Amino acid sequence: MCLLCVQAQVLYDFTAEPGNNELTVKEGETITITNQNIGGGWVEAKNSKGEVGLVPEDYIEVRAIGSVPDLSFFDAFAPTAASTDSALLQASNGNDPWSVWNADATGNAADSWAAKPEGTETAKAASNWNSSAQGHFQAYQGPGAADDEEWDDEWDDVKPGGYTESEAGEGGPVNLGPVWLYPETQLDCVVADPKKGSKMYGLKSYIEYQITPSTTNRPVNHRYKHFDWLYERLLEKYGSAVPIPSLPDKQVTGRFEEEFIKMRMERLQGWMTRMCRHPIISNSEVFQLFLTYKDEKDWKMGKRKAEKDETVGVMIFSTIEPEAPDLDPIEVEQKCEQFSRFTRAMDDGVKDLLTVGQEHWKRCTGPLPKEYQRIGKAFQNLSSVFTSSGYQGEATLTDALTAAGKTYEEIATMVAEQPRKDLHFLMETNNEYKGLLGCFPDTIGVHKAAIEKYKEGDKLVAAGKITPQEKTTMAKRVSTMSYALQAEMNHFHSNRIYDYNRVMQLYLEQQVAFYETIAEKLKQAHARFTTM
Amino acid sequence: MCLLCVQAQVLYDFTAEPGNNELTVKEGETITITNQNIGGGWVEAKNSKGEVGLVPEDYIEVRAIGSVPDLSFFDAFAPTAASTDSALLQASNGNDPWSVWNADATGNAADSWAAKPEGTETAKAASNWNSSAQGHFQAYQGPGAADDEEWDDEWDDVKPGGYTESEAGEGGPVNLGPVWLYPETQLDCVVADPKKGSKMYGLKSYIEYQITPSTTNRPVNHRYKHFDWLYERLLEKYGSAVPIPSLPDKQVTGRFEEEFIKMRMERLQGWMTRMCRHPIISNSEVFQLFLTYKDEKDWKMGKRKAEKDETVGVMIFSTIEPEAPDLDPIEVEQKCEQFSRFTRAMDDGVKDLLTVGQEHWKRCTGPLPKEYQRIGKAFQNLSSVFTSSGYQGEATLTDALTAAGKTYEEIATMVAEQPRKDLHFLMETNNEYKGLLGCFPDTIGVHKAAIEKYKEGDKLVAAGKITPQEKTTMAKRVSTMSYALQAEMNHFHSNRIYDYNRVMQLYLEQQVAFYETIAEKLKQAHARFTTM
Repeated sequence: MCLLCVQAQVLYDFTAEPGNNELTVKEGETITITNQNIGGGWVEAKNSKGEVGLVPEDYIEVRAIGSVPDLSFFDAFAPTAASTDSALLQASNGNDPWSVWNADATGNAADSWAAKPEGTETAKAASNWNSSAQGHFQAYQGPGAADDEEWDDEWDDVKPGGYTESEAGEGGPVNLGPVWLYPETQLDCVVADPKKGSKMYGLKSYIEYQITPSTTNRPVNHRYKHFDWLYERLLEKYGSAVPIPSLPDKQVTGRFEEEFIKMRMERLQGWMTRMCRHPIISNSEVFQLFLTYKDEKDWKMGKRKAEKDETVGVMIFSTIEPEAPDLDPIEVEQKCEQFSRFTRAMDDGVKDLLTVGQEHWKRCTGPLPKEYQRIGKAFQNLSSVFTSSGYQGEATLTDALTAAGKTYEEIATMVAEQPRKDLHFLMETNNEYKGLLGCFPDTIGVHKAAIEKYKEGDKLVAAGKITPQEKTTMAKRVSTMSYALQAEMNHFHSNRIYDYNRVMQLYLEQQVAFYETIAEKLKQAHARFTTM
Repeated sequence: MCLLCVQAQVLYDFTAEPGNNELTVKEGETITITNQNIGGGWVEAKNSKGEVGLVPEDYIEVRAIGSVPDLSFFDAFAPTAASTDSALLQASNGNDPWSVWNADATGNAADSWAAKPEGTETAKAASNWNSSAQGHFQAYQGPGAADDEEWDDEWDDVKPGGYTESEAGEGGPVNLGPVWLYPETQLDCVVADPKKGSKMYGLKSYIEYQITPSTTNRPVNHRYKHFDWLYERLLEKYGSAVPIPSLPDKQVTGRFEEEFIKMRMERLQGWMTRMCRHPIISNSEVFQLFLTYKDEKDWKMGKRKAEKDETVGVMIFSTIEPEAPDLDPIEVEQKCEQFSRFTRAMDDGVKDLLTVGQEHWKRCTGPLPKEYQRIGKAFQNLSSVFTSSGYQGEATLTDALTAAGKTYEEIATMVAEQPRKDLHFLMETNNEYKGLLGCFPDTIGVHKAAIEKYKEGDKLVAAGKITPQEKTTMAKRVSTMSYALQAEMNHFHSNRIYDYNRVMQLYLEQQVAFYETIAEKLKQAHARFTTM
């Protein structure tokens, strides 16, 4: 990609300040970047009419999001009738085709794929991934410690409804299949303290968040665009194996409003927590750089290095070597299918809950409290009418009616405020999962494509176009990817179970408190009435 | 009124069965009754086209409801420039003008006003009323027993907000002004056991209710039309002094549906309870007849007698002689004004509460439970998606999610059923009061008209058209009416305080139980989730 002359899409309307050499652009418009070295968050761009001017870089997007997974990994290594290249030949020559990426085996073999001036850096990154990825794999054994080989067969024995007996913590062994190796201490971080900063003599403002990782306990500062940069790197590098959820939405209006900043911070925290929880991501060089860079120079160097990392897309699988027997690609396909069905069904379920939740939110913050308020007002109104009766001896009633009316006004306020206390978290969690689930089709697509390639390979062997050994190599690759996918599935499921338990606990806890408080208030209101 | 040839208004559409000599009539149509002696609940009538046929008597109404109060009492006895009649002359001749109706004083003087063959019966009724009405009056003295004369002055000392110190049961004397004399044991009755009966070989069906008075504990049966008859009698006889609330609405469609019968019974019970509570009404001959008639013959005789009672309208005041000094008509006017303002304000307040309550009812039985149901379904849906994950060890979560979903479905049902348990009674009480308050303008109107007459009297004295003694007589009459009005106001207020305390207690009690039950259910749902 030519960095000096690139197309970009406008994300938000931007109106030029007269006399500032700025360019007015509209959301959705495509512009050409003519100078990216303006600095201070600005770029020079040309629109379709040929007008040139400055545009805030935050308002435009250079990269296309949600692109089709790059299958070059398979194009390059899985033989088809049309394509055979040197790498395939290398594999078919009897060498272990994984060795070329396996830094552990060859020391710096990764260099041969990292045809970059910063080859050593790339190798280091690959080696880092390798050391963690290989180590991360292990077949999880339940407390009963079943035979090593059994988990594969056990999988087929899983029947819905048969869970209770083999549930974790409820006795009996659980064989989940491949899981990532989780660190002993889980990384965590706190996103806090949003501060307004400015550049270009105050012409351009931004919000900087403080991120403090649990490892160093030393805060670093990042703007939203840095998070976005991190997201891009993680997506590029790990997206084929690990679904990388999108960041909270970009937004331009109200970006500096307290409410928005608070919400964005909360969502960035959620995103970071999810990334920290992932053993592959949290241990990755780029993520560690983001969390623990020492100074501006350190950050810039690390940034440049990460941008030049070429072990991206499906190449990531080349850094994985599971210490386990190969999987049957047909079984893998079935599991892939099952997981695909599951994520689609969950996506529907989550979206359904979000729709219901949104409607409930609207009702709880709109018509419902208004109604309780009106009930409260009606009681108080009746109370003041009664006070005007001129009849002696009804102060107890009128006071009680006023109190009851005020209670319903309090309930109105409670009802309106409640969604922020409970529904909010239920919605946020489901929103997060909606985003996460949206990443799976791509991840699963990579695996399905690999399996298709492998199936073609069968025909190619029959036609004598590749050797059976080459087919075995393909099976090995599919197997490796499948180990990764299954580890990711297990990671997803265990996180999901934790997250939903947690958010439901929180939701119901708050709901209980809400209804108990209302009951208590009404009890007090009730006690004031008397029929002697 | 000529009973053999009378105009009637059609209350409900009635479609003639072909070949049954029936007449099709439309709601609102005016017809002429040509034969009232058909029997079996039918009358013969002629419509404006001259067509003649049978119509069910329940479908028509002979009397005009809500007519302007008959002021003939004052026309007859209060002299104006235009009208002087023998009765007035009698009064101006120095005789006590009340004596003509005062059965106690003259034994059967009422006969002179009961120009009916059943004169003795009327006299007896008047005497009965008298004995109770006179006795019923007493100036209520609080525990501190203030001077007899003081209550009148005390009235002006009543200031809103100054109640607490002089409140009943909270120490200090309370001077409420005139109150009715309440019986030691309050009459009560139970309306129950609605049964379907039929007449005319099953051609005409009706519902008969069983009414058991607390005095005899012996049930009597009455149809809705009998209640209506009683209402008419009470309105005619006592309407000028005591607001007689309307019966629950007439209704023609769904009259035999269980739900409607239940509701009507409940409302008839409410109406009867209110009538029982009123010392004048509950002690009246016609009301006692309704509750305690021995057999069909007894009932028919009593009915006929009551229908011929001529001590109706403002004549009722002629049966009252308060044992207390005359009231200043100007003060009376002020109190009248105050009470009038109060009833209008309360009418607004009650209608406001009814409107709010109706909307709340709609929400609680419509969109709100639907929403809780959808929340419940969304949780259960997510639970069944999770069950399909193929991941072991999430039975606890899926069971908990299902339970939470079912809990919200239960809450949906509770929300939808709740209005019947609490809002219903709040609405019924306010509906009853709306009806009662609707009667006051007429009752108050009678008094205002009397005061106006009295004020004209002042001018007439100045012009020498009546003597100062005649004016004193007028003042006495106004005073008597005012005693009655004040007693009725006090009756209304004390009932209102009791009723609103009671209904608010009931409402809030049920609301507390409702919210507590929800909290308890959610607590149980919460306990099923776990983040070990």
